Amino acid sequence: MRIAQNIRRLDAYVPGEQPRSARVVKLNTNENAYPPSPACAAVLKDFDLDRLRRYPDPNGLRLRQAIARLNRTTPDKVFIGNGSDEILSLAARCFVDDGGTIGSLDPSYSLYKTLAAIRGVAWKPSKNVSLFLWTNPNAPTGTLAPRDAIAAFARTFKGVVLVDEAYADFARANCMELATAAGNDNVIVMRTFSKSYSLAGLRVGYCVGPVELIDALYKAKDSYNVDAIAQAVALAAVRDQRWMKANVRRIVRTRTAFTRALETRGWDVLPSESNFVFAQPPAACGTAQEVFDYLRGRKIFVRYFPGPLTGARLRITIGTDAQMQTLLDALDARGTRRR
Amino acid sequence: MRIAQNIRRLDAYVPGEQPRSARVVKLNTNENAYPPSPACAAVLKDFDLDRLRRYPDPNGLRLRQAIARLNRTTPDKVFIGNGSDEILSLAARCFVDDGGTIGSLDPSYSLYKTLAAIRGVAWKPSKNVSLFLWTNPNAPTGTLAPRDAIAAFARTFKGVVLVDEAYADFARANCMELATAAGNDNVIVMRTFSKSYSLAGLRVGYCVGPVELIDALYKAKDSYNVDAIAQAVALAAVRDQRWMKANVRRIVRTRTAFTRALETRGWDVLPSESNFVFAQPPAACGTAQEVFDYLRGRKIFVRYFPGPLTGARLRITIGTDAQMQTLLDALDARGTRRR
Repeated sequence: MRIAQNIRRLDAYVPGEQPRSARVVKLNTNENAYPPSPACAAVLKDFDLDRLRRYPDPNGLRLRQAIARLNRTTPDKVFIGNGSDEILSLAARCFVDDGGTIGSLDPSYSLYKTLAAIRGVAWKPSKNVSLFLWTNPNAPTGTLAPRDAIAAFARTFKGVVLVDEAYADFARANCMELATAAGNDNVIVMRTFSKSYSLAGLRVGYCVGPVELIDALYKAKDSYNVDAIAQAVALAAVRDQRWMKANVRRIVRTRTAFTRALETRGWDVLPSESNFVFAQPPAACGTAQEVFDYLRGRKIFVRYFPGPLTGARLRITIGTDAQMQTLLDALDARGTRRR
Repeated sequence: MRIAQNIRRLDAYVPGEQPRSARVVKLNTNENAYPPSPACAAVLKDFDLDRLRRYPDPNGLRLRQAIARLNRTTPDKVFIGNGSDEILSLAARCFVDDGGTIGSLDPSYSLYKTLAAIRGVAWKPSKNVSLFLWTNPNAPTGTLAPRDAIAAFARTFKGVVLVDEAYADFARANCMELATAAGNDNVIVMRTFSKSYSLAGLRVGYCVGPVELIDALYKAKDSYNVDAIAQAVALAAVRDQRWMKANVRRIVRTRTAFTRALETRGWDVLPSESNFVFAQPPAACGTAQEVFDYLRGRKIFVRYFPGPLTGARLRITIGTDAQMQTLLDALDARGTRRR
């Protein structure tokens, strides 16, 4: 056979559906309900096409500098990737020897198991591993672990702890100071432009950590992993913190109202610190799978993860107030029918 | 140690310098001397920013369709990557088992050795390997191997042959028909938008091959490896074949004239089918290293690869006629001084 064993055996990761129709209420992939900063549009309008003739800055220095300033650290502690997916894939190569293991919370981001399989190592829902991926706030649960718990774990852990903070801007606390602290030698904190900055289509993520680990990522990456346009657009987004934070505030406000609305209808909603909720319908409403199918039939897309740990709930992205109302109206219509 | 052994030991690949100054004559990284199609500028000007909120098409279907049409094949035989660098990295994961080997011509693209080291397998200048990377036209030599030689090799080869055709648009022949032929089960042909399409800053490459191998690459890639803007800009570039071909014709014309000009000055120039030449200065001019240093002092950047197989020559990108004249004038100025 010409295809490597681990790839042959691999069940590919299946990302959430990306329906083309604009008439769909799309609450299935935790995209931001609001557009990116107008400063990003200005970058595109004014982009000097001749710059594309040339290779981009291989290390994205200007963007690294801006990210370093934002997080009160230095550029040599910042790595920029083609989405945080690329950073995860590089971490699996850089911080796991052959025969090593990758661990994560369970349940957590379902990509991690696929990642380990592609790297050709085992994934374990355990902390006795080479590389531990700690999603915080976690997905699909949306819950936040205290910083102290992660710090305490890292202190005795022999490997690298990568704290995947994709949703941190929606949370009340985060772990960035663990990554930037003097003496830290094994904590990396990862962020993305896909969620709070409304730039999922752009593919830019970054991480912050000890220089030695960041250098390893730079050694292993493709020469020019982030294109010139993406570097420029992400830079404009970082510089417009006010825009990002205003969108985050709106989403958090909607999250609070939507959580209350679901609870009023008998749903069990985990306390969310992200831009989604993980919620269990009351028995009268049917199973999570049934509600998922029903909503899908009405062109309302949410996410359903089968399995013993996740199958009782639905993960619902927080959209606009109007989108959440459409979903609630659909639930109410169904509730009435079933009574 | 927290860093994987193969990464710790790795000598990182060093891409050609990217000087910031516009006053440099930059002939060191085989970038196109002419800008991308104006259709690409139009895409950027009109890009609907709200599309960036959402994840891009994970499989780049519209771009795949356009590439398939261009190469008279079907989209299921086309893979799109974040530059052909990403395709190489995925091929190393998909077509090489642990303990396997990667081979290439020698000399060839110096990234390949780094690629094998990152994958944690051995690189050999041999054809007795798991994955053979055949650069054609080759770099840094610029010479073209006959399609029949590659076809004959592939017929008896047990592994995957990836023909890296980054420079094929500048050559008189290519191997695409080996990749699209019925019955082909181990030849992949790879192309890039970085060279003939003048889009090095955009990071888009593609490859064509048997569905089984293409499927393996899709399984192993990051979920959203090519961003929404890059997909749209590359699509505009593919659709403007006339623009790309006009630029290629200009470069080939300059290559012919520049080759003759070097030969007149006593240089030995390998017959190039690419957008660069690999040329040895006459003894009176000094060593390749000396000429490299001299040109660099005059802000003319070319590429010098030390070592027994490459160290006698310089790789010089074909720029505009004016750029090549600047280089020739600099050589003439030096020649005069040394006599």
